[in-house]
Amino acid sequence: MSFRGVENVIVGNLRTLMDAGPLEKLVGKEISPNGDKLAVYSGPRESTITIRSYANELDCRELESEWANTMGNGCKTVTLPAIKRGNQLNVYYVTSDERLTEYDIDGKVVDVRSEFQHIEIVHSKTFGNMLVLDGLPNLALSDLVYTESIMCRGKEDFKGKEILILRGGDGALLNELRKEDPKKVIMVEIDDMVMQACKTYLRSVCGDSLDNYQGDNYQVCFINGDYCRGLHCHMEKWKAEGKTFDYVISDLTDISITKKPSGGIWDFIVKIIDMSFSVLSPNGKYLTHATGSSNDGALKCFDYILETQLDRPVTFTKTNAFVPSFLEDWVFYQIELKKV
Amino acid sequence: MSFRGVENVIVGNLRTLMDAGPLEKLVGKEISPNGDKLAVYSGPRESTITIRSYANELDCRELESEWANTMGNGCKTVTLPAIKRGNQLNVYYVTSDERLTEYDIDGKVVDVRSEFQHIEIVHSKTFGNMLVLDGLPNLALSDLVYTESIMCRGKEDFKGKEILILRGGDGALLNELRKEDPKKVIMVEIDDMVMQACKTYLRSVCGDSLDNYQGDNYQVCFINGDYCRGLHCHMEKWKAEGKTFDYVISDLTDISITKKPSGGIWDFIVKIIDMSFSVLSPNGKYLTHATGSSNDGALKCFDYILETQLDRPVTFTKTNAFVPSFLEDWVFYQIELKKV
Repeated sequence: MSFRGVENVIVGNLRTLMDAGPLEKLVGKEISPNGDKLAVYSGPRESTITIRSYANELDCRELESEWANTMGNGCKTVTLPAIKRGNQLNVYYVTSDERLTEYDIDGKVVDVRSEFQHIEIVHSKTFGNMLVLDGLPNLALSDLVYTESIMCRGKEDFKGKEILILRGGDGALLNELRKEDPKKVIMVEIDDMVMQACKTYLRSVCGDSLDNYQGDNYQVCFINGDYCRGLHCHMEKWKAEGKTFDYVISDLTDISITKKPSGGIWDFIVKIIDMSFSVLSPNGKYLTHATGSSNDGALKCFDYILETQLDRPVTFTKTNAFVPSFLEDWVFYQIELKKV
Repeated sequence: MSFRGVENVIVGNLRTLMDAGPLEKLVGKEISPNGDKLAVYSGPRESTITIRSYANELDCRELESEWANTMGNGCKTVTLPAIKRGNQLNVYYVTSDERLTEYDIDGKVVDVRSEFQHIEIVHSKTFGNMLVLDGLPNLALSDLVYTESIMCRGKEDFKGKEILILRGGDGALLNELRKEDPKKVIMVEIDDMVMQACKTYLRSVCGDSLDNYQGDNYQVCFINGDYCRGLHCHMEKWKAEGKTFDYVISDLTDISITKKPSGGIWDFIVKIIDMSFSVLSPNGKYLTHATGSSNDGALKCFDYILETQLDRPVTFTKTNAFVPSFLEDWVFYQIELKKV
């Protein structure tokens, strides 16, 4: 397609979108003997659109070298790979502290939208299949350390114990806990589509744990609608039966990156923790993941929340582990009732 | 500074650089009632320069949401953090397979240029102090797994052995090998400035191993000028003395990312390996790191080089480990003479 053809397609699409006002063409010319062309438009809401064709390839390293030589020691240059736009496969994910990272994604095996979230399973050459929920990496085949860290494997003894998992639809926690000979593991999920996807494509992580909704020593329960409300119903039932848990392990959302310890996600987390302690035995523990260890502000907020906002006084410890597919060092909390 | 002032500074600097031809101003106007301004120039070598001021902050997520709503299900959008330009501290590094990654760099403690390379030690919240040579991350406080992988700790027995380290100026290999009770470790370096920097700022990695150039069971030798030529001199001396090594451990450059197994870096690597086997005992091993495990092309080349280009037939094995500060899974080779 000619440059004029490309320009017409882009401008035509933009006119459809920019219904708030006209596009004004500011420049349209050939800018070199090689035939490089340039068109610049201004549009509504202070937008500018630049369309540029290059007759020759641009050697960035050569250009960087020329700049550095010309400008001397006062010049700092950094040459970075171009951002890849318009690929079929997205290769970029953002860390919990908003840093840009490019992954070696070379395929996608699941791309569906459930009632609750966008579910993708992509393939990374390094990390294997990766579960991505609403654009956030959740767990990959490489991440056993995440599961072992959240459950504190090696430090906690799950033999003969009653365990409640909140979410965990990838089946990893359920699978690893079953190996520890517990009395019973109950997993409360909201999204069966995640489980169906992971059963096939993250099988080395979940094993056969998602093949059936129950087995000798485990059961998967579902919640319809609001997670807090649904969990509350289950808990009222367990309390009426006199049932208590030795562990509640929460694989829910990351903690908020905001610095204010109130609102939205914090209220949700406080509710979940308070409810959990209402069914935990007196020596029971609430184990959870939190966020990246660089996220000082969010971690300080979570500490504050735990120290001041819960129904019952608690004490807590923290551990760290570098989770490969997150490309981040991640923080895990272990919370129990304060001993009098 | 006003927009016109900024424009004048930029254009003034560019006129100094662009000695090959004039800059032509194509556009200079206010493009919104808010006062957003735009100037566009074309310059020599088909360059275009766009200078843009924004009166209001741009809410990218709101914009992404509007695009997605307007274009419907046919639209895929990805919102990424902006590339941070012009910071005092560079936060971007590029993986061995040319992927862009943003680090949590919050300080720099060393920034010097030796005769051989640009030496920086920066601080990452996650990885601690990181040695960066010519813009490439080399080793951080978080990376014991790199050192243990290159030396195959736990699989190789270094007690009473003669070991030669090629480069290794961060002192990590020397420090870990000394703990294994070897007979003697000789390290051949080229750049004392790296050692001086690491002695202070990567101390938990090198311990006291760089405090002196020799000790009971180790010695650091220096090479002036060309590494191959200098190493050759040392080797001729050792061969004349009848000295052999049980291990040569190479912490030299990464293998090339080119797909052609010839030229530049490959010729250097072949020379180094051939020289090393000339001083290795018959059962001796050459241990080295290679590149990221995503770098299929380079790894295939290295295999081909080892199978066809060396003076002596060899066999080799490979191991992998995820190196935290590289944000990559890295490949390590263990090479020995083919047994007849």
